[in-house]
Amino acid sequence: MTEDTLLDRLCAAVGARYVETDPDALAPHLIDWRKRYRGTARARVRPGTTEEVAAVVSACAQTGTPVVPQGGETGLVGGGVPDASGSAVIVATDRLNRVRAVDPANNTMTVEAGCILQHLQQTAEAHGRLFPLSLAAEGICQIGGNLATNAGGLNVLKYGTARDQVLGLEVVLADGSVWDGLRRLRKDTAGYDLKHLFIGAEGTLGIITAAVLRLHPQPRETATAFAGVPDVESALAVLNRVQEATGHAASSFELMARRGVELAVKHVEGARDPLGAAHPWTVLVEVTGGFGDGGLRAGLEGALMAAHEAGEIADVVMAENAGQARAFWHLREAIVEAQRHEGGSIKHDIAVPVSAVPAFLAEATPAVEAMIPGVRPVPFGHLGDGNLHFNLTQPEGADPGAFLARWEAVNARVHDIVHAHGGTVSAEHGVGQLKMGEIARFKPPEEMAMLRAIKRALDPHNLMNPGRVVTPEAES
Amino acid sequence: MTEDTLLDRLCAAVGARYVETDPDALAPHLIDWRKRYRGTARARVRPGTTEEVAAVVSACAQTGTPVVPQGGETGLVGGGVPDASGSAVIVATDRLNRVRAVDPANNTMTVEAGCILQHLQQTAEAHGRLFPLSLAAEGICQIGGNLATNAGGLNVLKYGTARDQVLGLEVVLADGSVWDGLRRLRKDTAGYDLKHLFIGAEGTLGIITAAVLRLHPQPRETATAFAGVPDVESALAVLNRVQEATGHAASSFELMARRGVELAVKHVEGARDPLGAAHPWTVLVEVTGGFGDGGLRAGLEGALMAAHEAGEIADVVMAENAGQARAFWHLREAIVEAQRHEGGSIKHDIAVPVSAVPAFLAEATPAVEAMIPGVRPVPFGHLGDGNLHFNLTQPEGADPGAFLARWEAVNARVHDIVHAHGGTVSAEHGVGQLKMGEIARFKPPEEMAMLRAIKRALDPHNLMNPGRVVTPEAES
Repeated sequence: MTEDTLLDRLCAAVGARYVETDPDALAPHLIDWRKRYRGTARARVRPGTTEEVAAVVSACAQTGTPVVPQGGETGLVGGGVPDASGSAVIVATDRLNRVRAVDPANNTMTVEAGCILQHLQQTAEAHGRLFPLSLAAEGICQIGGNLATNAGGLNVLKYGTARDQVLGLEVVLADGSVWDGLRRLRKDTAGYDLKHLFIGAEGTLGIITAAVLRLHPQPRETATAFAGVPDVESALAVLNRVQEATGHAASSFELMARRGVELAVKHVEGARDPLGAAHPWTVLVEVTGGFGDGGLRAGLEGALMAAHEAGEIADVVMAENAGQARAFWHLREAIVEAQRHEGGSIKHDIAVPVSAVPAFLAEATPAVEAMIPGVRPVPFGHLGDGNLHFNLTQPEGADPGAFLARWEAVNARVHDIVHAHGGTVSAEHGVGQLKMGEIARFKPPEEMAMLRAIKRALDPHNLMNPGRVVTPEAES
Repeated sequence: MTEDTLLDRLCAAVGARYVETDPDALAPHLIDWRKRYRGTARARVRPGTTEEVAAVVSACAQTGTPVVPQGGETGLVGGGVPDASGSAVIVATDRLNRVRAVDPANNTMTVEAGCILQHLQQTAEAHGRLFPLSLAAEGICQIGGNLATNAGGLNVLKYGTARDQVLGLEVVLADGSVWDGLRRLRKDTAGYDLKHLFIGAEGTLGIITAAVLRLHPQPRETATAFAGVPDVESALAVLNRVQEATGHAASSFELMARRGVELAVKHVEGARDPLGAAHPWTVLVEVTGGFGDGGLRAGLEGALMAAHEAGEIADVVMAENAGQARAFWHLREAIVEAQRHEGGSIKHDIAVPVSAVPAFLAEATPAVEAMIPGVRPVPFGHLGDGNLHFNLTQPEGADPGAFLARWEAVNARVHDIVHAHGGTVSAEHGVGQLKMGEIARFKPPEEMAMLRAIKRALDPHNLMNPGRVVTPEAES
């Protein structure tokens, strides 16, 4: 099929106004959020229905055209940016934005891939329910991208990752056919679980066009505390106490190194340390649930008091109202912005077993300090999930470019330590282009062989988001 | 390879004393729990380590020998019984029974496939934790079988199915290699999620030899109630009230039709209806969690009182102690035994969306009554999961054989209605041999094609538990 014929078919499939080929209009969609990856594309199409997605993928399959799905374009690993060959068609999901059904009695909603995450949180709330997935990009990111990357975020400790929110999927497959797997069931043992294969596959096996999502009751109570602790082992002990006292009610348990708090207070408006003294580590704990009788807060207070008596907590404040809780969170969220004011940052998105976090930090911190004298580690993140953003701020006064040139070498060293502690080099951001080499370096050969076999089985011509996650044949 | 050579290799792999070929010794392992399936086998081997399993599967792969994994032999769909050809080697997992590690700070334990479920519950308890998977066969069934079939049971409403308890797996693959996927991580977005493919695959893609299981805090409080309700819609309204009042604390929400309660009281020792009057439907609700201050029970009582005022509950009793709670459960569990005293039963293991349960029952009950005049439906089960055991007791005085001869015809009619309501014909027992035809009848062709493609990709010679779940090529 000639170029004209492909474009004709795309126009016939979605309407000419939704087929963009103008370079200036395409440009913003050819670069990733962190501006690390650039590519080119033959066209960017914006189908409005599942049938239109199927027609687009079908035309691409028949012409051997690579397909790059694009959601809210907030990914951090280059998963949604085409390569430089210019052969790909971008399939944007933003017009697939209908909430097809809400079923409060089944605690589910059926939504299309292009729905904005925040809109889905609001939809659930309007029906007296909670949709717990929550992350920094929630005002922009689309649920299809959240599912394709198995997004994590702030509430994983209590509610799990994006994967755990899904009962069913609708997917346009590599040949352009549509799999209707929109089940709304809590139990189903009829055959292999295909939804879990597409979730986290980053569009390399098909395009998720719709999903059945679980809803939860809205929590009756929330209680939030901010504590200074002497070391990471103590933070873990506090986590354990809180979970036992509240029956696993912790929705967030965030760890911050002293340096992160100091940089946030220094650089970000409104960021204030609620504790009087400087503590080597601080934790932000939030519990949700309860019965509307104050018992949840009392349970948290009891656990924190016992931790204080045991020397695991040096000082602690409870939020007395929603405004104070927001202030605690503002400090936590200010850390990323604060680091920008101090020059370059080398970042990691890693997870280790929760019990291995102290040993990982004890090994990784001196290792990077030995590589780059004066480097300023600012570890923070979701301790309750074992997921740390082990971010490194450049030495004071150093050249940012020279520092950032060490990115890959530092990553490699840190990832070796992560692997030695049974961890992953991609905790919640996915593989995309950025981590392909690293996951191949650490996964056992039996696992890489299975990933490739599945890729070949479901995308035999390697047209679905090629060059991401895994190649169909072993790299030589 | 000759027969002798295969047996020699099996003996070399596991030791001759663990290779059984004597027909009398094999016989009990060639028939299923419900005595519906019988087969024969070349040998039954009992490897003691993962390496021994790998050596056995390797020998089978090289000789084109089918492999049938066998756990506690409590399956209900003929998944663990060899076929009649006599060509298969049974691989029993009972000697793989070590708890390799317990990590309370990570809330995980690493266990081998042959561990008895009840022993794992006790192991968790000994470490101050809860392993929530619980089902009738827990004193006999093995965790490997629970995972291979994605078992459900009594606590799915709060804790999910077997699938939801797993962080990592170790699997012996079809070629005899070992995949070490024993990750202990809460977040991991590095590549396709393979564990979810093996869980629920019933041994058709490989043999699960070990798993990393999640642990939970032990609940501080439990409260149990037994209520009479006028109809199934009211039961659903009560479920919703309880979940909202207690923050999703219901671990069980069981529905029983009047007939089930009457048969249990009539036939089973100690079964007593705690309610004074006869109600068309009864529910058993149990909530777990709380903060040790009585708030959980008060939350449940408040929800039940509000339901009573709204006319959704006619009468209710709360268990005042553990003995009373056990008595409620004894009545619920007596229903299956009670049915045996009334002659033959035709059974279904189905699930529909929770919100569709009333409509399903309203359609399925008259449908089976029209097929077999005098049939006595005894629907009961896990309403909170939409999972009903829609069991039918024969008409009074009818011939059991003639009644049971209608099994397939009745199944087909009921399954059509289940499918029309968006349900599944295999909710928690799996596919095995019993349901292969039925799942192929209802799944969309795109899905069947994917199941076959995955089977071919991971088991190219169709040697892993062949003839279960899905055939590698479409049946003509």
